[in-house]
Amino acid sequence: MTAPPTAADVLAAAQRLHGVAHRTPVAQSRTLNEHLGAQVFFKCENLQRMGAFKFRGAYNAIAQLVPAQRAAGVITYSSGNHAQATALSAWLLSTRATILMPHDTPAVKREATLGYGAEVVLYHRLNDDREAMCHALMQAHGLALVHPFDDSQIIAGQGTAALELLQEVGPLDCLLTPLGGGGLLAGTALAAHHLSPACRVVGVEPTASDDGQQSLRAGHIVRIAPPQALALAEGALGTHLGERNFAVIKHHVHDIVTVDDAPIVQAMQWLAQRMKLVVEPTGALALAALLAHARPVRGQRVGVVLSGGNVDLQRYAGLLAQSATTAG
Amino acid sequence: MTAPPTAADVLAAAQRLHGVAHRTPVAQSRTLNEHLGAQVFFKCENLQRMGAFKFRGAYNAIAQLVPAQRAAGVITYSSGNHAQATALSAWLLSTRATILMPHDTPAVKREATLGYGAEVVLYHRLNDDREAMCHALMQAHGLALVHPFDDSQIIAGQGTAALELLQEVGPLDCLLTPLGGGGLLAGTALAAHHLSPACRVVGVEPTASDDGQQSLRAGHIVRIAPPQALALAEGALGTHLGERNFAVIKHHVHDIVTVDDAPIVQAMQWLAQRMKLVVEPTGALALAALLAHARPVRGQRVGVVLSGGNVDLQRYAGLLAQSATTAG
Repeated sequence: MTAPPTAADVLAAAQRLHGVAHRTPVAQSRTLNEHLGAQVFFKCENLQRMGAFKFRGAYNAIAQLVPAQRAAGVITYSSGNHAQATALSAWLLSTRATILMPHDTPAVKREATLGYGAEVVLYHRLNDDREAMCHALMQAHGLALVHPFDDSQIIAGQGTAALELLQEVGPLDCLLTPLGGGGLLAGTALAAHHLSPACRVVGVEPTASDDGQQSLRAGHIVRIAPPQALALAEGALGTHLGERNFAVIKHHVHDIVTVDDAPIVQAMQWLAQRMKLVVEPTGALALAALLAHARPVRGQRVGVVLSGGNVDLQRYAGLLAQSATTAG
Repeated sequence: MTAPPTAADVLAAAQRLHGVAHRTPVAQSRTLNEHLGAQVFFKCENLQRMGAFKFRGAYNAIAQLVPAQRAAGVITYSSGNHAQATALSAWLLSTRATILMPHDTPAVKREATLGYGAEVVLYHRLNDDREAMCHALMQAHGLALVHPFDDSQIIAGQGTAALELLQEVGPLDCLLTPLGGGGLLAGTALAAHHLSPACRVVGVEPTASDDGQQSLRAGHIVRIAPPQALALAEGALGTHLGERNFAVIKHHVHDIVTVDDAPIVQAMQWLAQRMKLVVEPTGALALAALLAHARPVRGQRVGVVLSGGNVDLQRYAGLLAQSATTAG
């Protein structure tokens, strides 16, 4: 394993992203603050380019490839936001992206990725070994891998969202982010440790995918079986943290909590109704933890990363229409 | 009639609102720009306090009352955003607001207004004369009227949204806003005439309520019958422009266009899907005009005011779920 990233990598990533990534707004709600007895700052990465923080990491990684690598192109596997992030970043940096996607990826996501000029290669979710396919394509065409999370430059890029938040609002007592493979959480922890060393950094993952919590408690990476059904927050349904990610998380993350689907839906509804923001289920995980009181924050200054807003419109409409009884 | 407002009033309003109103973000979409062959800047007033630009005007008006007036309190009539804007502004300025609302106002809007500490007085939409009721309450309690649109300080306050937009992005070729009673359009026209004199200012109203277009063409205020059914963009369903509003509009507004419901729904869906923004039907009028090609903008720098985001969640979910065939 190459060395895990440091705060210096996050600061360097911020330089690379300056003028390229959106400096997304920070939002507040008086009502929520009164309800929680806290001051909550939302970092609106749903308003980031291509709709999620993932752009930061992908661009930061691809921007550092040497000319020969850029000439050959990049490859990754993802059915989600990292696919579009890699495709858009490759397009902006004049290189060619190949994206391995599961055969059952919704057409709208395939089209969005194709729309950024990437080549999409489908694999069968159950029958194919995507890592072997990826490796074969890398060998055949000399492609550089842009890993979805276990990569120091990806982690450093994702950390720039928290860096901007802390630069804008000052030190925090607590900072919550969604957790999947650990790119966002590890990058956030580096930024917080650098700019707000007393801040408690907390990852939030779906109950159905609590490998992060298990890993932090065990002190080593715990692998879980892939969740059987597609859960609500599918963007955070990893089976294991990345090695570089865990190397940072075990030192700089204070807690990992889990939330069920009901508070996630409640958080999405609240964000639409009160903040006028479309946030995808995974993107609402951190607020869901606050609403479910998975983390006491009374009297604190709290950062919440709203990590993305990419959700199929029909599905989103259905979640908004769920009754409060079901949701809460 | 008191004198209509001037650009100086808009600049003074901006001073009063500094640090009180949100300086809302300006958003762009590469996809839309390519589609239209233009550069479009969205001023996101759906992210304003209480969810709409109306806060600007109400606060600007109430902030200028003399102490005796503030001691007595303010009154207005509105079932929509102006009710909450007045209630919140009164609360912030330590005065008491009385809001006349139709008996059939959705409970959620009544509760939001009560939540800001206002007193709500219901009137029967068909049987009661709300202006007479309002006048009686003003006389009895010495209340100051905060008119929803026909008031120079309301107009000046609403103009600060366009002022901020032009200060941030520089001169525009064209600037579109929703049009109801004319507070936002008149204020926008004053700001544009001051900072970007060559900018064409365009009001957009629902086809069902085209009194603004008729008035601009006739050169005098045309009154229409109240629309029979509640239409989609109910916030822009006025029967006539205000006198002060028209005094500004006839000099500084270049065109008023109308749009049907279908492009409004299409605009709302697009804003959710691509911009991750919840925008109410009235708030999407200006973008709807662009999507319906009611206004040619190729090659231009175009401002679009997204005026508000307050829409019942169930209703919003239903509009998002409408099929593209119905919507487009």
